[in-house]
Amino acid sequence: MRGAPGAPLRALLLGFGNVGRAVAEVLARPERYLGLAGLDVAVIGVVTGSHGALVSPRGLDLSRALDEWRGHGRFTPGHPDHARTTALDAVRALDYDVMVELTPLARRARGEPAIAHVRGALERGRHAITANKGPLAWAFRELRDLADAREVAFLYETTVMDGVPVFNLARHGLRGATLTRVEGILNSTTNVVLGTLEAGGTMADAITRAQREGFAEADPADDLEGWDSAVKLAALASVLLEAPLEPEAVEREGLIGLDHARPAAVRARGARLKLVCEAWRDGAGVRGRVALREVPGDDPFALVEGTSSILRLVTDLAGAIVVTEEHPDIRVTAYGVVSDLLAVAARDP
Amino acid sequence: MRGAPGAPLRALLLGFGNVGRAVAEVLARPERYLGLAGLDVAVIGVVTGSHGALVSPRGLDLSRALDEWRGHGRFTPGHPDHARTTALDAVRALDYDVMVELTPLARRARGEPAIAHVRGALERGRHAITANKGPLAWAFRELRDLADAREVAFLYETTVMDGVPVFNLARHGLRGATLTRVEGILNSTTNVVLGTLEAGGTMADAITRAQREGFAEADPADDLEGWDSAVKLAALASVLLEAPLEPEAVEREGLIGLDHARPAAVRARGARLKLVCEAWRDGAGVRGRVALREVPGDDPFALVEGTSSILRLVTDLAGAIVVTEEHPDIRVTAYGVVSDLLAVAARDP
Repeated sequence: MRGAPGAPLRALLLGFGNVGRAVAEVLARPERYLGLAGLDVAVIGVVTGSHGALVSPRGLDLSRALDEWRGHGRFTPGHPDHARTTALDAVRALDYDVMVELTPLARRARGEPAIAHVRGALERGRHAITANKGPLAWAFRELRDLADAREVAFLYETTVMDGVPVFNLARHGLRGATLTRVEGILNSTTNVVLGTLEAGGTMADAITRAQREGFAEADPADDLEGWDSAVKLAALASVLLEAPLEPEAVEREGLIGLDHARPAAVRARGARLKLVCEAWRDGAGVRGRVALREVPGDDPFALVEGTSSILRLVTDLAGAIVVTEEHPDIRVTAYGVVSDLLAVAARDP
Repeated sequence: MRGAPGAPLRALLLGFGNVGRAVAEVLARPERYLGLAGLDVAVIGVVTGSHGALVSPRGLDLSRALDEWRGHGRFTPGHPDHARTTALDAVRALDYDVMVELTPLARRARGEPAIAHVRGALERGRHAITANKGPLAWAFRELRDLADAREVAFLYETTVMDGVPVFNLARHGLRGATLTRVEGILNSTTNVVLGTLEAGGTMADAITRAQREGFAEADPADDLEGWDSAVKLAALASVLLEAPLEPEAVEREGLIGLDHARPAAVRARGARLKLVCEAWRDGAGVRGRVALREVPGDDPFALVEGTSSILRLVTDLAGAIVVTEEHPDIRVTAYGVVSDLLAVAARDP
């Protein structure tokens, strides 16, 4: 699928939000990172939903694209590479090696159109990387089977815990062991809200902070009602517990209706109130729950603050392993995508 | 190197201590574990230093070997597969696909004879797995280069943090990111001693417990003087920070001379006294230190109790990732070896 040997990996990016721009920042100057010395990616298109598109078969100048975005908040017709195309048309018509899905999650649309974007790329025999959780939560098996049939890669490392390689850990690291249960704190906004309430602040303060710092979901209800946690749990369960679990089937509690004094009262007893996601095998299937839990002070879950996240993997043979991501910035989210690009580049000769 | 396709992987085990017997327990009845359904290993020899050896080219009956050990604490000449051989002779003369080094660490002998065992297997073009840290701490580059030259596997997942796949995590999971620093709590005996002193017990109590439960090193001085931590740090640094660091070059503090009241005094201030290993890049080289540190109560290092262990991986691009192993039993140590056997089996067609 790649052109001449040694030719760059041609990537099509869909979406240019916080994550997309952070990926572009890394790809614009990979020489800043020791381990990216061998990375040779030409971004042949960046297509957004309603903020314009840039296309260049020889590869875009990403620094210029980032400058234009900083100036105008969109790609304007004055740019020589400006193009009129929809994401789905670009997926179907442009010539690329790997499609990178970076659009925001559309929870009410059950992961569409991101699922259609991934399917479109895989059907053409192109690799697909998604930073959008929708394709895992609602269509993992179909897309994995399609990728296997076309012998291309379908990668998604950044969807849960950003730069922490949870899927790689389970795939390469836990060979022969069987995961029986996963549990985690996976949503930043609710974690910040609980910490703010504990300290005597208001929910509105915390939501404002989450939006200003760019980690809140587009629709705050998706965070506060536990939907973002449920979607991440569905993604984890579908991949790691090997049975489909749709977000709508996750038993779900959020922060709506929470007594604002409760987090401080729990803390005063030496515990912490946390929104915990859990999924476990149940016969041939899997069950999931997102719920407020009083976590004892000596559990590492009690120490997870702000944008940090944590995941406990319980196995039959490798014991219990806990992974914590400490205070990630947006570059760490971008890293998950870049590591998938490196995996695709290593796969092709 | 394997015989007929579908033939079992023929393994030679050196050592039959706690870890060796736990590996044999798993291999004797792999059908107890869902993920080991495809594992087909024939152990063609078990050779100990001074407790006898069993050899059978068709594969030993491991349940019978374990029974004999439980009864006699050694392999006796009455066993039909009893053999007279040294470990090094077995490495050089027997026919096997993979050698598994399970002998205790000989710190004063700078990792020998385990290094010679691994070298001997690799020189014959056989795969080598080591649960002994010596070959990594004193001879990693030589052995890795030898394995690469002979196109065989050299694996060592269980040497640090037992069943937690720290080396696989760095190898497959942190592609493109550069590790700049590792820090951890990696020795159970000293961690149990510090917890016992905190609670008002004596060092002798704690050491007795560690020996009874089987996690103390053969020579308690190797634990208490910080040598076991230094050897693990040297292993981690040599593999993950890509520069040799010998245990003797690690700045080293242990528990000898510790004021027995100090752990409780530190705890009363809301912190914990822990023996922390750290290694970091320093120019083209790497430096290491094992030292008592007062860890703040909100650091996950403060929650590591007893035989649990923790490792923080600090990177340039993937942020800081913390991995905790919670209360492992000996089976988890065995799992690290079994996962390496599965990796070898997956490598050979």
